[in-house]
Amino acid sequence: MAVEWSGFTPEIMLHLDRGVRGTLGTQLQEALRTAIRSGRLEAGERLPSSRKLAADLGVSRGLVQGTYEQLAAEGYLTATGGGTTQVALTLRQSMIEQPAVASPVEAGIDFLPGRPDLNSFPMRDWLWACGEAARTASRSDIGYGRAAGSPRLREVLASYTQRVRAASISAHDVVICSGFTQGVALTLTVLREHGTQTVAVEDPGHREMTMHVRRAGLNPVPVPVDDQGMVVDELRRTAATTVILTPAHQTPTGVVLAPARRQELLRWAEEHDGVMIENDYDSEFRYDRRPVGALQGLAPDRVVMIGTVSKSLGPSLRLGWILAPSHLAPAIAEEKRRSDLGSPGLDQLALTRLIESGRYDAHLRRMRRAYAAKRVALAEALRRHAPHLRLTGLDAGLHAAATLPEGTDEAAIIAAARRRSIHLHGMQRYRVHRAPAPPAIVFGFGDLNEHAIRSGIARIADLLLPSTSHPV
Amino acid sequence: MAVEWSGFTPEIMLHLDRGVRGTLGTQLQEALRTAIRSGRLEAGERLPSSRKLAADLGVSRGLVQGTYEQLAAEGYLTATGGGTTQVALTLRQSMIEQPAVASPVEAGIDFLPGRPDLNSFPMRDWLWACGEAARTASRSDIGYGRAAGSPRLREVLASYTQRVRAASISAHDVVICSGFTQGVALTLTVLREHGTQTVAVEDPGHREMTMHVRRAGLNPVPVPVDDQGMVVDELRRTAATTVILTPAHQTPTGVVLAPARRQELLRWAEEHDGVMIENDYDSEFRYDRRPVGALQGLAPDRVVMIGTVSKSLGPSLRLGWILAPSHLAPAIAEEKRRSDLGSPGLDQLALTRLIESGRYDAHLRRMRRAYAAKRVALAEALRRHAPHLRLTGLDAGLHAAATLPEGTDEAAIIAAARRRSIHLHGMQRYRVHRAPAPPAIVFGFGDLNEHAIRSGIARIADLLLPSTSHPV
Repeated sequence: MAVEWSGFTPEIMLHLDRGVRGTLGTQLQEALRTAIRSGRLEAGERLPSSRKLAADLGVSRGLVQGTYEQLAAEGYLTATGGGTTQVALTLRQSMIEQPAVASPVEAGIDFLPGRPDLNSFPMRDWLWACGEAARTASRSDIGYGRAAGSPRLREVLASYTQRVRAASISAHDVVICSGFTQGVALTLTVLREHGTQTVAVEDPGHREMTMHVRRAGLNPVPVPVDDQGMVVDELRRTAATTVILTPAHQTPTGVVLAPARRQELLRWAEEHDGVMIENDYDSEFRYDRRPVGALQGLAPDRVVMIGTVSKSLGPSLRLGWILAPSHLAPAIAEEKRRSDLGSPGLDQLALTRLIESGRYDAHLRRMRRAYAAKRVALAEALRRHAPHLRLTGLDAGLHAAATLPEGTDEAAIIAAARRRSIHLHGMQRYRVHRAPAPPAIVFGFGDLNEHAIRSGIARIADLLLPSTSHPV
Repeated sequence: MAVEWSGFTPEIMLHLDRGVRGTLGTQLQEALRTAIRSGRLEAGERLPSSRKLAADLGVSRGLVQGTYEQLAAEGYLTATGGGTTQVALTLRQSMIEQPAVASPVEAGIDFLPGRPDLNSFPMRDWLWACGEAARTASRSDIGYGRAAGSPRLREVLASYTQRVRAASISAHDVVICSGFTQGVALTLTVLREHGTQTVAVEDPGHREMTMHVRRAGLNPVPVPVDDQGMVVDELRRTAATTVILTPAHQTPTGVVLAPARRQELLRWAEEHDGVMIENDYDSEFRYDRRPVGALQGLAPDRVVMIGTVSKSLGPSLRLGWILAPSHLAPAIAEEKRRSDLGSPGLDQLALTRLIESGRYDAHLRRMRRAYAAKRVALAEALRRHAPHLRLTGLDAGLHAAATLPEGTDEAAIIAAARRRSIHLHGMQRYRVHRAPAPPAIVFGFGDLNEHAIRSGIARIADLLLPSTSHPV
């Protein structure tokens, strides 16, 4: 079934295939996306009313409304004041260029934490940097390079982390890796060889952390986190000599490790000959306060700091860095060599040029503004629809946590929201100990635009109300 | 100190700094390279005679001669019949574009095995493919993709390995990795979890193999290799249930696993419920005979085949693939996820486009011709200067082995050659058992041009003579 309408220029033809059951909404979404991507529908063009398009296509008006809403959430369409819908005035490059593939958020709005704005990946800058890499590559950038990474990139990152994160490091002690996952795996393997047996992890915390510790042949032990960050007194009660933590913006609570706790932690490390593995995953994005320096800068001989471009540029680049104490750096580099010989040479060179040229900083400035706006959208939507919820972690990063009233059934809310195609993520999945703890939702907002954030919260507002019985 | 000469156009100015002690030769080399790269010295231009340039610069004539010889070895200059030297007529793109950095072969001629021709890296094609990747990237190519790799690349590689290597695989059982090193590490870890304890490795063989086996918590056991490949009867005498081998072109002997041995090996695997890890590292390059299919195609349920672009394109791309039996593939993909979450998304997409577009095949055809010429240069030079040496492994790949007369001191020859800036690599470093074995030199020729190969062999010809006392 096809329909052609001519309410605006250029004409647009939409095909819906009724032979495929139950996917008319998806087909319509995809047809409109393709039309926008290919330029057949240009920025600013008005779409027919949902009533008119529904009549033309012979589908329900709700299906068209849902489609418009979804594409607005994705940034393709904008709802104007007068109740009409138009193609968004500023389409991101990736929307225009990318082929007609199914989008992972197509099925709804996903407040998944830990994902940056994929539509804002600076593809043009990255391609420019690849060209620069090609132009300036030496034989060692093309051949088997050093396992620790390109000397140029290590220099650039040593300066960068000193400038931006108040780190204290020589390029010699920087090891390039593929991101936090590999960085922590290499570090833990080396620490085991140096005698470590027990490793403390944050509770609640990233749920993969205990897997990493066990995979390295070590024992994980959870240490509680409160609104000041990790409770160091509890850490003292464990057998741990190594601790993995997220001091700049705790996953998932979003709290910043308080200055007093930092001092306690450093004392613990001195007294126990301890090592702190600092997961510095989204520290680039702070909104309200002055930047919080890295723990690494306070104790370079006791902290292994792991940073990555996964949040600042995009996860698929698979580039990160380990700032290691001098006595561990060579062993970590050797472990990198044994596991994969080193990270891709041209990619390393491209990142070098991106940082050297100032384009990396410029991108971060743009994204800081973009994420600040998303953050405001989330805070305002929650204040409006669920003013009773306490929101933590909004000072930095790409997620915040909303504590639900005591006795709320976290899982039931998540399930009910999912039935409305809103994907929520509960605090429960971050618990290491399965002990009872206040229910909460962790809202990731990095990869959602403001419209989607507002609309997503509005659509589940009733579920967040302080009541134990929820409509489904 | 600067000199300007005008014996040819355009004028060229060379600066030598006498304040820096002992590096006049290096400075002169670099100044000439820079002049050629930047286009100030054009292809075919004649250089002043070594006598004249030495007088102009106030340096010894030997220093200028050495410089000319070095740059000829690198392909920048050509010695013409009449005793004059000119800029090479066909400069590789990488010579023109790359910046003035020190070349690793600057110090001499290195017959290092396992390195492809780095000057022939298809930078233009790769950059084109990066552009294609940028243009066609979907959100999942930019975000956290699948740990097993891009579905598109896995499809393309399944077809490619079936077409070129007679492999038998579904895209579902392809896992993208960073190369052989990571591929074997992931595979061995999974095999240990499946009960493997002892792993056979080739002797002589790649010296890192026992490290990989031990690192995975397994016991390595060496199995001898003769002129038919691995001796399967000896394998049967071990406790191994897994074997790592290079059937297409053995490292370092270069022999191809004979058909009868293949059948024996498959029988061993059937009888022992064994797994064969096939290191398919340089099978793209065969010269004399029809391609030898992969072992994987004969027993897809018992072979884990690991391939890579390290030799076909360049090591620094860090891209490889694992073709795994269906019952192991999901566990290998999970192990990849745990170790680094997956390989870089845009690089995977670039490789996909490179193969799809036919540019990968075209590059391989070019390189096959180039390596065939290098191979002829090596064989002829050795026939001329050391006709008594038996050369094996010339049918394929980027290295060949020359067996020295019984009683020759392999280490002494290597040391003597090094004093002439010719770097040789002996069979001894490939021995797993330190038992006495015939001395041999493994000549890698991938990254040397024909001039360097001929000149390198000529300069050590006397060392290869069947005598136990060698001039130094």
